[in-house]
Amino acid sequence: MGEFDLIDRYFRRGDPAEGVKLGIGDDGAVLAPAAGHDLVAAIDTLVEGVHFRSGTAPHAVGHKALAVNLSDLAAMGARPRWALLALTLPESDTAWLAEFAGGFFDLAQQHGVTLVGGDTTRGPLTVTVQLLGEALSGQALTRGGARPGDLVFVTGSLGDAALALAGDTSGGAGVDRTLRQRLEYPVPRCRLGQALVGLASAAIDLSDGFVADLGHLLTASGCGARVARAGLPLSNAAQQFAGKEMFWPAVLAGGDDYELCFTVPAKRAGEVDALAQRLDEPITRVGVIESDPGLRLMDEAGRPVAVPAQGYDHFPQ
Amino acid sequence: MGEFDLIDRYFRRGDPAEGVKLGIGDDGAVLAPAAGHDLVAAIDTLVEGVHFRSGTAPHAVGHKALAVNLSDLAAMGARPRWALLALTLPESDTAWLAEFAGGFFDLAQQHGVTLVGGDTTRGPLTVTVQLLGEALSGQALTRGGARPGDLVFVTGSLGDAALALAGDTSGGAGVDRTLRQRLEYPVPRCRLGQALVGLASAAIDLSDGFVADLGHLLTASGCGARVARAGLPLSNAAQQFAGKEMFWPAVLAGGDDYELCFTVPAKRAGEVDALAQRLDEPITRVGVIESDPGLRLMDEAGRPVAVPAQGYDHFPQ
Repeated sequence: MGEFDLIDRYFRRGDPAEGVKLGIGDDGAVLAPAAGHDLVAAIDTLVEGVHFRSGTAPHAVGHKALAVNLSDLAAMGARPRWALLALTLPESDTAWLAEFAGGFFDLAQQHGVTLVGGDTTRGPLTVTVQLLGEALSGQALTRGGARPGDLVFVTGSLGDAALALAGDTSGGAGVDRTLRQRLEYPVPRCRLGQALVGLASAAIDLSDGFVADLGHLLTASGCGARVARAGLPLSNAAQQFAGKEMFWPAVLAGGDDYELCFTVPAKRAGEVDALAQRLDEPITRVGVIESDPGLRLMDEAGRPVAVPAQGYDHFPQ
Repeated sequence: MGEFDLIDRYFRRGDPAEGVKLGIGDDGAVLAPAAGHDLVAAIDTLVEGVHFRSGTAPHAVGHKALAVNLSDLAAMGARPRWALLALTLPESDTAWLAEFAGGFFDLAQQHGVTLVGGDTTRGPLTVTVQLLGEALSGQALTRGGARPGDLVFVTGSLGDAALALAGDTSGGAGVDRTLRQRLEYPVPRCRLGQALVGLASAAIDLSDGFVADLGHLLTASGCGARVARAGLPLSNAAQQFAGKEMFWPAVLAGGDDYELCFTVPAKRAGEVDALAQRLDEPITRVGVIESDPGLRLMDEAGRPVAVPAQGYDHFPQ
């Protein structure tokens, strides 16, 4: 099966989709953006051996390659619409491709995303997804709008993926499976992200680790924040590891959470609760924005904790 | 220098650009598409050791990574606007990055393209560029519109890049340099592509080789074509190799030309000549569309030539 057959067989699917005038199969896709909207564009790469272990189930790789981009668009409050896929493969492995495509399209369908183009090349296994979405004109969320007094919220729970990767300690089969699921099948908060438009003053997705990503938000907003470590949301599975040396580093700086961190003016906190109820999404208030730059992290007794290393950096100094 | 410094230092450039509400530095870019236009999206990957030799000048890699996408948009008749860059690097090599960025931005500026986002990861050297452009609504060129009687045209010359890669034969220092320049610094036909809107019935860019890419156009159009080999445009440098065994395979199936192949109704052929004059672009009429499917290639005496292998396929059977 040659390159062109690969694309035809595994990636050209479904009926013509809304807004797609021309999909896979020409030099470019032709798309019709909705009037009154801005376009929101993100791109993310997963490299075998760096972002996922060799031997990871291809269905999980397909899922995650799209999920990490969906999470970016969620943080912008954008509705995801169209994806392009650049897939570099060491060989034409039809079983791998079929499963990979399954993971990609299962998630794409859940979020109304259409694959409109791509490029298949030979080389070390690398998956780049480029995702396009739309937000009402001028309404996209950014990292830069937090103001002193705003409250800081986090969705879901922190540290699960990092604890799955820590690997040298087992929490038991059930716990390990739960954490691995969180690592391999992150659930992007797209619906919530879109619902935060007009409510959140700033938002970011947690990919590099809570401390690092909140740091990006604070820098972009020109503010600081105070966060109580005891108030951070932890899954039952993660709590099995409380007390272990890697526990707080994983929770605070581990990365790969793909949760949202966002800020809301204090007087509108009730609207966040209502949203959490309505969408059935777990949202936890974790801190408050202050005018002094920097993150002030407090321990269970209210004493300052040293802020851990700044999350995942592919090219540390 | 860490990952975030890399992006800041080498890729965040220039003043706010038209249509860019938010560029590099958030979870996604926010773009304002022009009213009355369709969005045209392409993505292409270059892998070290596959698409360019290890040791290729980084300036050339940066140029080519963007050029191949510009060529796709040229074939769609679209005006290029915004790019995203996914760059996977084995290490943080500042000299390499500075030159790479130089090659990318030199070409980007020529074509009015703004880099609005990206992702930098560690791994085997792989460059994926995703390019967004715009065409008047409903006016983008496709591969599918050729009709029997239309004439077939090709820009520039064929086979130069493939002859540079053949490598086992030298045409002399000057010839070799010329061919290498064509391989490493392809010049996308963006201005011409946009000028073909409303004139060309179909278009494709020549990346996989003339025979393969014309074949894609014919398949998409449900037609065939007759082409005289003697009428194909050849550079003076390429002609040094006429008579060598690899000559016709390189010209017909070598790929990496990044020229345009397009069709125009016969009665409008004069407009193509006028366009070539006005834009000072080399355009050669090479054949005619016929209703019978398939490509009929004729030699210098008008006898049929066997059509060579179908161009570059990353996953041949």
